[in-house]
This record gives sequence, structure tokens and C-alpha cells, in this order.
Amino acid sequence: MEGKEEDVRLGANKFSERQPIGTAAQSDKGYKEPPPAPLFEPGELTSWSFYRAGIAEFMATFLFLYITILTVMGVVKSNSKCSTVGIQGIAWAFGGMIFALVYCTAGISGGHINPAVTFGLFLARKLSLTRALFYMVMQCLGAICGAGVVKGYQKGLYESNGGGANVVAPGYTKGDGLGAEIVGTFILVYTVFSATDAKRNARDSHVPILAPLPIGFAVFLVHLATIPITGTGINPARSLGAAIIYNKKHAWDDHWIFWVGPFIGAALAAIYHQIVIRAIPFKSRP
Amino acid sequence: MEGKEEDVRLGANKFSERQPIGTAAQSDKGYKEPPPAPLFEPGELTSWSFYRAGIAEFMATFLFLYITILTVMGVVKSNSKCSTVGIQGIAWAFGGMIFALVYCTAGISGGHINPAVTFGLFLARKLSLTRALFYMVMQCLGAICGAGVVKGYQKGLYESNGGGANVVAPGYTKGDGLGAEIVGTFILVYTVFSATDAKRNARDSHVPILAPLPIGFAVFLVHLATIPITGTGINPARSLGAAIIYNKKHAWDDHWIFWVGPFIGAALAAIYHQIVIRAIPFKSRP
Amino acid sequence: MEGKEEDVRLGANKFSERQPIGTAAQSDKGYKEPPPAPLFEPGELTSWSFYRAGIAEFMATFLFLYITILTVMGVVKSNSKCSTVGIQGIAWAFGGMIFALVYCTAGISGGHINPAVTFGLFLARKLSLTRALFYMVMQCLGAICGAGVVKGYQKGLYESNGGGANVVAPGYTKGDGLGAEIVGTFILVYTVFSATDAKRNARDSHVPILAPLPIGFAVFLVHLATIPITGTGINPARSLGAAIIYNKKHAWDDHWIFWVGPFIGAALAAIYHQIVIRAIPFKSRP
Amino acid sequence: MEGKEEDVRLGANKFSERQPIGTAAQSDKGYKEPPPAPLFEPGELTSWSFYRAGIAEFMATFLFLYITILTVMGVVKSNSKCSTVGIQGIAWAFGGMIFALVYCTAGISGGHINPAVTFGLFLARKLSLTRALFYMVMQCLGAICGAGVVKGYQKGLYESNGGGANVVAPGYTKGDGLGAEIVGTFILVYTVFSATDAKRNARDSHVPILAPLPIGFAVFLVHLATIPITGTGINPARSLGAAIIYNKKHAWDDHWIFWVGPFIGAALAAIYHQIVIRAIPFKSRP
Repeated sequence: MEGKEEDVRLGANKFSERQPIGTAAQSDKGYKEPPPAPLFEPGELTSWSFYRAGIAEFMATFLFLYITILTVMGVVKSNSKCSTVGIQGIAWAFGGMIFALVYCTAGISGGHINPAVTFGLFLARKLSLTRALFYMVMQCLGAICGAGVVKGYQKGLYESNGGGANVVAPGYTKGDGLGAEIVGTFILVYTVFSATDAKRNARDSHVPILAPLPIGFAVFLVHLATIPITGTGINPARSLGAAIIYNKKHAWDDHWIFWVGPFIGAALAAIYHQIVIRAIPFKSRP
Repeated sequence: MEGKEEDVRLGANKFSERQPIGTAAQSDKGYKEPPPAPLFEPGELTSWSFYRAGIAEFMATFLFLYITILTVMGVVKSNSKCSTVGIQGIAWAFGGMIFALVYCTAGISGGHINPAVTFGLFLARKLSLTRALFYMVMQCLGAICGAGVVKGYQKGLYESNGGGANVVAPGYTKGDGLGAEIVGTFILVYTVFSATDAKRNARDSHVPILAPLPIGFAVFLVHLATIPITGTGINPARSLGAAIIYNKKHAWDDHWIFWVGPFIGAALAAIYHQIVIRAIPFKSRP
Repeated sequence: MEGKEEDVRLGANKFSERQPIGTAAQSDKGYKEPPPAPLFEPGELTSWSFYRAGIAEFMATFLFLYITILTVMGVVKSNSKCSTVGIQGIAWAFGGMIFALVYCTAGISGGHINPAVTFGLFLARKLSLTRALFYMVMQCLGAICGAGVVKGYQKGLYESNGGGANVVAPGYTKGDGLGAEIVGTFILVYTVFSATDAKRNARDSHVPILAPLPIGFAVFLVHLATIPITGTGINPARSLGAAIIYNKKHAWDDHWIFWVGPFIGAALAAIYHQIVIRAIPFKSRP
Repeated sequence: MEGKEEDVRLGANKFSERQPIGTAAQSDKGYKEPPPAPLFEPGELTSWSFYRAGIAEFMATFLFLYITILTVMGVVKSNSKCSTVGIQGIAWAFGGMIFALVYCTAGISGGHINPAVTFGLFLARKLSLTRALFYMVMQCLGAICGAGVVKGYQKGLYESNGGGANVVAPGYTKGDGLGAEIVGTFILVYTVFSATDAKRNARDSHVPILAPLPIGFAVFLVHLATIPITGTGINPARSLGAAIIYNKKHAWDDHWIFWVGPFIGAALAAIYHQIVIRAIPFKSRP
């Protein structure tokens, strides 16, 4: 008890923890920030766990696109949304899959399933550049395959119903779409940082077990809010997979939004968590 | 085991725990109620964690209003609710955001995101008056910014669709609305007290990890029930933010209800939990 | 590890645990069944925790009826269910409230909120007859008050829309309704027994924390299935409260079903769990 | 800490764990893979826990079909899906029942409730052939009884509304249906393997408690996506029970798909988890 700051204390403030303004945010008794991951780590490339992690990211993103785009197709092809799982069902599909897949792959690859998440964690130096790029490639390949299988079921319906591709909806400007993607990805990546905070985990071993739940919910919630604006990307692999398989001009026109927006949002979340919340740059070096 | 009263025992009564009527409710072996927070604590004002907590409350309330009001806009602008996430989707947005945000900010600020929650916890002397006022200001500022961003996306639609502001629905009296806000906030704040009970936490370290789930569900459930009456406030910052950005007379007419109701409900919940359930005033002083 | 039978093992069978047929189901190393509660325990009546538990049951059942019947009213008064939270929203209200309320009151009263649950646990001798009867009375009083407040909001609408009272729907016989109540309550009470199994709890202290979730889900699921048949009772206090406040003949005609059905279902669940699963009668006395 | 590989680490990669390519994926300090279950284990047949497990599988599958098929009937008999729990409600019924039932029966039988799950776990040698066959027979019997009770409520409506039987929807080929069943069951069984991974459980005792949640979600998600294609089987007992009670030619024509598809999907998931993720065949024998 003594010396152990309880990090997940709800409903109460932590008025006993206090530092002079301007110094590090935590006194961190008994906790040491892990060292930043190196940019390039040659040893990784000869380890099986590196490639296994890439396979797990591929498989997870494949299943993610398969279930979500198939759900989207089932909803949009029907005239009466009432006889489908509805737009809310689409939001559940995206959020629920992230919950289940993060739960299943967290122990293998970290459970990113999203280049924006990988980018945010890379900025926080949680993984090497080599690994980040490898993950992103595998995520994009998985997403393309997942959307491809859905198109394989019913090619005509897929092409006439938008193919699950992200576009800015009529009535919104490209700036609106970009803003929605930035804030949406901020919510997701900030939840990832909060839920997997190494300091919190070091104190309480139950935290990582529950973490997939708020992360999945974050995805669900952003979909509830921004499906009417952009169809909700917040995951460049998901947007790329659908765009490549759908492959029509109007999907490609807006496509940059679904890379630039998520990467900006992820970077802001990394900055907010590392600098404002954890104050890592201000920590006195030992 | 011995001497440790199991507080979270489901389905069984605790017939072995027994005191003469009129004395303290708990014998509290091995547990000491933390001392009440001082009204004013000068040291707080020079600690970074105090301001960091305020920033976290601002950010959380900003994201809360952003997602929820955007979801409301997506539903109300459509004639057929079937082609939206529906009223139930709105309830999920409010409850789900509280779940995710409490999970993420509990370790930083306590995760209030609601002046009524802050007020209830202040009455129970869980935080100082300084901190309570600071939180409320930051929550209100965050809420205004969140609603403002939503209006920025589509100003015309925002103003013609009520702007997510809380008003008493036609067919209900102001008394009905006030009652709905009082009982609704009671449910929320009582859940906060139960789920974060310091005595329960002291015994079982898993309780605080799960606490955001029932708290988020409480918000979801109150929305299911009272959206038809008031649109559901139970959070004065949420009501204020939407009212200021919407800024039309009929929203301001009922606005007092969404401050008076939640504060009464929070006070009742604090009284119920501290006096009836925990019997703190009757405890023998050491 | 040694001698500790892992009770919550998923996906694997327990082929190493084995007894000759006809003897007790568990060898129970290191676990002792708690003694059955006495039928009448005079000491209880002078303890404050006994009355506090009754107050908690009253309050929980009050809030349960308030939220659920208000949700029902919001749905049924609208011609287009699409502009409400829908029938699925009603099911969430019932299940979600049970989740939140069981979470909050488990440590105070055991979190029954339902005379059928109290009856089932009494049959398994988990609480005394005195306490069981006291709980049932408090639950019924709470339910009447909760439905009464809902009627107070809009008396006319309440009476013209069925008042949330349970009746057998046209097209179904009284036998169908009785069967639906029996099986539905069986599912609920069996989940209560499984999730709060004293043997399981003794081994793994996290089980009771999570138990409210499957219990709430059980209520949600039974509502999904049987709302079209009886409106779903599986809780005599809920049915009584709505019937007394609604007070029309056709609600009283079927009312016996919502006491007899749940009590039979609860008794079957108690028998199934105690005899088939736990084999308590066959255990060799020490 | 030292020597204990943290298996459920979210958001971070495990770059410190590394082996030369081609050797075993884990060094497994302090963890030993349990030996494979024997094909035939005579001792099981004389143990009460063996038969109790079969009874629990029967009861769980009975309740599973009862609730889910009743929910399906309530939705399909209505012209306006808006006045029912909707297709999304059906998905919740299937996924939620699996969550609750796995939670309740995991400690008794392992909580399979699905011959495809039993088959996948048998391939991974988690249970004996005797037990696998016994479970499958009990699951099918339970499913038949569950569907039978639903038909008993309203025979006419049951037969005119498809009886909840799985068929390939018009517009899809049998190959589409088979593919949907393979991938859907892969998702379910891979989630079962990941969530109940013996290595992960050995390290962290909270994992098995939470496992029913992602498993139930996996079932929910597959239903969201593939109800429009096959009605979603991914459980041969569920498909057989509905087909036998419905018993019309067009349900039997496609019936092989709902055995072949799930068994292929389960086998692929077993191969993926055991060979790619756990690399069990490549492990050096001691």
C-alpha cells in the first residue's frame, strides 16, 4: 500500500499526490518508464515472433474488413433499413470486431489492426520503425483481402451499393470530413493509450485484460457519431481496402482524408497522452 | 479471510454480519474511512496534478459533447429514424462515452465529466471545494467547445434541429421534467457512489477497474427512459454547452431545470449512500 | 495449483476430475459448503444491516420499475416504434437496470430485486425465511411506488397504453404464457446460481465482481424472446407493481401466471443447480 | 516479473521476446503445455462429472435454441420489423445467450454448446473422442428439444415463418453460404482458442473469467454479418434442431452446408491457433 499510488481511482480526486508546478507529473515511486523502442532493431528480423505478429495483424484486419463490410452490404442493399441490423448494427460490427480482435491478438502483436494506432504508438516509441512499417503493410494487405471476399459473394450488389468505401457525404465539406476523422481517431488512439498505459499496467495487472472493452467501445461510439459524415474511417487500412476493391473515382477523390485525418488524430493523441497526461519530456533523467 | 467482510456478495444475504439497531452499520474491521477532504486546500493550487486533472475534465467533456451531440444531429435531421442509429443509438452514445471516458480519465481526475457528479462527491467530502469548482468550470468550458464544433460542421441543420439542447417535451409539465432529472441523476450518482465505494475498493482491488461499466450503463438507462420527457440532461455541463451554442429562447426557458434537478438528485444520492447505506454520521468516533 | 480444482475453465473439459457414479459430484478439497441458513433467525431482527438490506431492496426495485416502465411508456405511446428506443430498447432497460442495480446492491442485500430470485435462494437455504419474506414485501412496495411515479407523469397516457402490466398476448394460451414465465425465470435464476456459486467464489475472488453482467444479460435475453408472449414478467414484484397501479380487470385476470410461473421456474433452477450440478444431497456428511 | 512473459500486452509489441526463425514460437519459461487428451479414456465413463457435463451441454443448448428461435419467431411474424426487437435483436439473442451460457457452464462442461467448438477443441486434443461424441449428441438433443418447445407455443406461425431453420438466401450460391459458414465459424473457434489459451490462463487467472464476453461477441458479430446470407448457422446443433422441428424439404436441401462449413471453419481455426500462433508441432520435445 505505502508508496503505491492507486492510479485507477474513480470518483475521488488524488489530492494527496502533488508536485510543484512545472516538474514531472508523477513521482513514480516503484515504476520506471520502459526505454523507448529503437528506430531500427536488426534482431527483430530474425525472430519468428516478429513474423507471427505480422501474420496476426494480417488475419485480424482481414476478419475485421470481412465482417464489417459484409454487415454494411447487408444494410445498404435493403430499401427499408428496418428489416436489417440498421446503421446502429454497423456501428456494433466495427466496435465489436475491434473488441474481439484486440482481445485475441493483443498477446501476439499488440492488437493494433489499424495503421493509425500503429503510427500513434510508434510516435510514443512503443515499437520500432521496422515493426511499425511491417504492421501497416500487413494491415493493408489483410484489409484488401477482407473486402475482396465480400465483393466475391455478390459483385453486382457490392458495386452498386458503394462497397463500404469511405467518402464525405453530400452536405459536408472536405474540411468537415477531415475534422471528423481527426477527432474520431484522437478518441480511439487516446483510449488505446489510456487503457494500455504501461504505468497503470505495472500497478494493476487486471487493467490489460479489460482494455479491449473501452477500445472497442471507442470505435463503436465514433461510428455512431460520424457515419453520417464520412462513413467513419479512423482506420486507413479499412479505408484503403474498401477503396481498392471498390475502385471508383469518387471513392479515390476523398481517399487522402482517410490517411491524413487518422494520422493527425493519432499524433495529437500521442502528444496529449505523453506530454499533457504523462509529462514524459519533463521528467528528470536519472 | 478471517475478519474480512466480503462486501460484494451476490445472491446471498450477509446474515452473519449484525449489529444492534441504531449503531454504526459496519464494524469495519481493518478498514478506515478516509478523512473528509478539506474545503480549501492551498497546496493543491501549486501542484501540476491539479491542473492536469482540470485539463483532463475539459478534454473529456469536450469529447463527450462532440460525440453525443453529433449523434443526436445525425438522428434528428433524418425523417425516417430507421435510416439512422435511432433513439437507442443516442442513448448508447451518451452511456458509452461515459463508460470510455471514465475508464480513461479515472486515474487522472477521478473521471467526473459532470458537475452533478462533482457536486455529489463534494457533498460526501471526497474532494475540496476549490477542486470541485475548478472541475465544474472546466467541464462547462469543455461542453461549450464540444457543442460548438458540432455546430461548426453544419450550422443550418444544427439550428433547425434543436441543437441537442434539453427542453421539456410537449405534454409534460416543468414539474415532470424536474422530477425526471432528479431521479435520473440520483440513479447516476448513486451508481457512482456504489461502484467507487472506498470501503469496497479497499477490500477488492478489482472493483475500481469494473466501475466505469455500471456508471456508463446508468447513463444509458436513464436516457432510454427520459429522452421522451426532457431529452435527458442529468449533466448540467452537457445541458449548458448545448444551450449556449444553440442559444434560442425556448432552450433557456427550461434551463434552470437541468441545474436544479441534477444537483438535487446528486445531493439525495450522497445522503442515501452516506447516511442510509454507510451510516457514516452514526459511526463512533475513535 | 495442487488440490485446487479450477472451476471456471473454458473450452477444456475437466477429464482429470472423476468420481465413481452415484457419489458426490465434487471432492471439494479445500472448500466447505456453507451451512444452510436457518428458517428463522431471531438475531437478524435486531440488526441494522437487516433493515438496511430491506431499504436497499425497496430502493432498487423502485428504481427498476421507474426506469423500465417509463421506457415502456415512451415506446408504446408512439405509433412509429422507429422514433423510439424500440422493443429492443425495452429489453435493454430491463436487463441493464438489473445489471446496474445488482452491481450496486449486491454488497448490501445480495441484490435480489425480484421475489422469484429470493424464493430460489431461499429454497437453496441461502437466506432465512424471515429475511426472504421481508425482502419480498419490500420489493413489492418498491415496485408499486416505481410504477406509481411513472403514472404520475402522464396519467392518461399510462392508462390508455397498458401501464406496462403483464398480460398474455392475443394468440397465445394461458399455458403458453405460464410456460414462457417458467422457462424465462429458470434461465434467470439458474444464471444467478451459477454466477454466485459459493464454491466458485471461494476459489476465485473475481467471479462475484463480474456476476452482475451475466445476470443482467439473462434478463435482457428473456425479454428479447418473450416480450411478444407475455411482455415478460419473470419478476412477480414487477408484475404486481404494474398491475396495482394500472388496476384494470384484464391485467388482473392473468396475474396469477406472473407469480406461479416465476416461482415454479425459480424452484426448478434451485433443484437443477443444487441437485444435478452441485449434487449437494448426495454429499457424504462429515 | 523476471522470466514471466506478459501475454496480454496491448498496444505494445513484444520486441524483447525473440527466437531464431524456424524454432518454437515460445520459450515458455515456467509454462508447460498440458499433454494432449487421449482419444479414448475408459475412466471417464464411470465418473459422474462426465455425465453431469453432458447434462449441462444438453440444458445449455436447449435454452440456447429456446431463446434464440423464440426471438426469431417474434421478429419474422411481424410485418413491420420496427415493432419487434429487429434483426439486430436476433443477433443479440444468439450472442448474448452464448455469453451467459458459457459463463454458467464453463466450470461444468467447458461450455461448448456447439458441435463445431467441440470438434475444434477435439482436433487440438483438448478432450477425448468419447467425450467429444457424447457432447455432440447431447447438444443435438438439446437443440431439438429447444426448437420443439418454441414450435409448441404456436405451431402454425412456426411453420409459416421458416421455423428459424438455416437456408441459403435467394441471390446467394451454395458456395457463398458455405464460405460464410466457414469464415464465421473460424472467427468463433479462433476466439474460443485465443480466449481460453492454456498458456495465457496459466499466467493470468483473470483471463478465463472474462473469456465468455469475447466469445459471445464473436457469435453476435458473425450474426450481424451473415444473417442476410444463411441466417447464420456456425453451430450444427442449432441448425439441426431447427431443421428437424421445421422439417420441410428446402431446409434439408442446404443442411449439409451447416455441418461441413462449421467443421471446416473449426478445423482451420484449430490449425491456425495451434500451428501458426502457438507453433506447437515445432516445439522441441523435452
